Amino acid sequence: MDESGASALLQAGCGPILPAHDSTVPPLRQQIFECVRSHGQISRIDVAKHLSVSPASVTTIVSDLIAGGLLKEVEAPRDPGSRGRPPVALAVRPEAGYVVGIKLSDLVHTGVIIDFAGRPVAEARLHRPSLRTEVDLLVEEADELLTRMLAEAGMDRSAISAVGLGLPGIVDHFRGLILWSPILRGLEIPIARMMSERMGLPVQVDNDANVLTLAELWYGAGRRLPDFAVVTQEYGVGMGLVMNHRLYRGANSVGMELGHTKVQLDGALCRCGQRGCLEAYVSDYALVREASVALDLHRTESGSAQVILESLYDQAKAGNEAARTIFRRAGRFLAAGLANVINLFDPSLVILSGARMRYDYLYAEDVLKEVRELTLNKGRKLPRVEINAWGDLVWARGAATLALSAVTDARTSAEVVE
Amino acid sequence: MDESGASALLQAGCGPILPAHDSTVPPLRQQIFECVRSHGQISRIDVAKHLSVSPASVTTIVSDLIAGGLLKEVEAPRDPGSRGRPPVALAVRPEAGYVVGIKLSDLVHTGVIIDFAGRPVAEARLHRPSLRTEVDLLVEEADELLTRMLAEAGMDRSAISAVGLGLPGIVDHFRGLILWSPILRGLEIPIARMMSERMGLPVQVDNDANVLTLAELWYGAGRRLPDFAVVTQEYGVGMGLVMNHRLYRGANSVGMELGHTKVQLDGALCRCGQRGCLEAYVSDYALVREASVALDLHRTESGSAQVILESLYDQAKAGNEAARTIFRRAGRFLAAGLANVINLFDPSLVILSGARMRYDYLYAEDVLKEVRELTLNKGRKLPRVEINAWGDLVWARGAATLALSAVTDARTSAEVVE
Repeated sequence: MDESGASALLQAGCGPILPAHDSTVPPLRQQIFECVRSHGQISRIDVAKHLSVSPASVTTIVSDLIAGGLLKEVEAPRDPGSRGRPPVALAVRPEAGYVVGIKLSDLVHTGVIIDFAGRPVAEARLHRPSLRTEVDLLVEEADELLTRMLAEAGMDRSAISAVGLGLPGIVDHFRGLILWSPILRGLEIPIARMMSERMGLPVQVDNDANVLTLAELWYGAGRRLPDFAVVTQEYGVGMGLVMNHRLYRGANSVGMELGHTKVQLDGALCRCGQRGCLEAYVSDYALVREASVALDLHRTESGSAQVILESLYDQAKAGNEAARTIFRRAGRFLAAGLANVINLFDPSLVILSGARMRYDYLYAEDVLKEVRELTLNKGRKLPRVEINAWGDLVWARGAATLALSAVTDARTSAEVVE
Repeated sequence: MDESGASALLQAGCGPILPAHDSTVPPLRQQIFECVRSHGQISRIDVAKHLSVSPASVTTIVSDLIAGGLLKEVEAPRDPGSRGRPPVALAVRPEAGYVVGIKLSDLVHTGVIIDFAGRPVAEARLHRPSLRTEVDLLVEEADELLTRMLAEAGMDRSAISAVGLGLPGIVDHFRGLILWSPILRGLEIPIARMMSERMGLPVQVDNDANVLTLAELWYGAGRRLPDFAVVTQEYGVGMGLVMNHRLYRGANSVGMELGHTKVQLDGALCRCGQRGCLEAYVSDYALVREASVALDLHRTESGSAQVILESLYDQAKAGNEAARTIFRRAGRFLAAGLANVINLFDPSLVILSGARMRYDYLYAEDVLKEVRELTLNKGRKLPRVEINAWGDLVWARGAATLALSAVTDARTSAEVVE
């Protein structure tokens, strides 16, 4: 047995160098702002309690945030029977700024404008015909969506602080690049810069599963739990992971490609060009592929995938055994994919999220039972699995959160009065 | 389309509550100790630079750590040609304490004693006959190993501060429980308490892949990289993940069960009782199972699995096509498992580690090529894959690190002089 490695190891007397500051901890200023926003209304003293800091430091920073126009004082509800001056609470000043979120997709783009308190001001949808397109057209469509929303809200473009963009594919968030997307032609597309030039606004971009995970983090399960996984299903299968209240981004800041994990060596062909990917068994296009064989349907025109899927779903509900077997098989592979996520990440909660969660055959008790059977269960506590059928605007809302987060981070760290 | 979820979402104006203190950031006192240990020797001023803190606060805390017997001053090498008093550096006081690391396994237990600076003082191995045993026997064997090492080092049991234990299976580190282990009979075994009672020493326990990952974190790749994945192969397949210089433990503090992720629905039978697990294709027992069919061998006695494997390996090297095809197939499944890890975690480095890495058929260029072919690669940067054949003592060394980490954490946070 080769012990030279061990010998070298046994000589070494040193360990890892710890980082001086953990980059995942935001400054107190930002924490206070987040705390107020997450509570809606909260008193200074309760902020201090929540963050375990002194009331004096909260008071100082809150004064800055009020002077900077980010927070405001509001009258808090008085306890019944109490007298004197009504208590004062803090709230985010909604008109401190507005951001836009846009989700780009294969069949429909969706968008929202939200204010600084996270409330919606306008929303829009843009139906589109083709699956894979040139980036110039996508930029044009996104800008059209923005223009429509501004008109609806009666707002000028200059009122918008930033735009957040979510789309499927491999996205380098920090560099603003689409490395590859199933809805786009070309590779390494500097979409953040292109959108920004067209819109005249700062643009943040991320993988669509990540923006959906941000929505769950800000408005859903993330308000209670520090760690959870989000599995999304739409045209493809995506995943986001929250650890310690933060989105996990990996070493290269691209998304977690659950859809392209292999569930069968040399298996079904995936649109990524490889074989045996989870997506090749459970995504829309996988169902359509099976449907066109089993139900003798043919996909002749663009947009008809949706029609085939609806028909497949209706037939399964009506008792068509061929249609049912398609959903059943997809459900089993989905179960294997979910079990793998649980085996690896051991999250306390798995959220199945996204608009297409309405194909409930895929999320039936059978599938959840199969997940349990495919997860190593020797004495191990299995996580809850939740299904969130938010509707399609949740993606855009998550994209807006991406923009809001960047803007408030910048404004809460920049406006230091010292 | 159901928009009620979206409507509810769009009403909500609140986000996640951030934790006041990120529990992953150790106190400055501990960071200073870690910094000295990781450097071997370092001056106060360089510690301050490394941690981006004031020299004054380093000086104060270092005085405490010296008074507490954890650090000492040493003469640093003088620059050639410089005059005057030699410069003073800090080092860990090795005799500040000793800890034991024990790796329990199916065929051989290994152990080391290390001092506070991480240097080995004694080591031992205990060969054993059976695969699955009663916990009482395992406790006895571990204690025998400890006794041997103490004799070798000429030390008394009272000189040991703590024991770290690594073993395969599902281990609840924080509660000190073995939920399930392939080498143990029974479930939910309070092994930390049982070992502690027998040895008369504090005992920490963790999954063997986690302790190996700790060894990589303290003495290997972790000294340069904040994020990496470790995949281990021994009797089974394990995995550890380091994020931001810390071991990821998931919600329930059990290990990451890469070996039980499914690579084939309804596939080969795994020793966990489920089908299609990665382990059922690539672990020792999977190879033995195939070998006994293909090579017409029979596993008649305990311990002979090792003999079969050695013979299989020799025959593959000698050109036996049946033996080669067994390794080739296992290698392909291993590649799929590694590609899944990369697709999901996007680490900057994957380390294949553990003693049985000597079956180099499994780690040939073919396998690494297959990993690249099974990883979604659209514009994405693939991580390096490193193979570390440390020899079998690395596991025990990792287990000792588990104990050392707990002891120094406790001593650096307890001995605050204020």
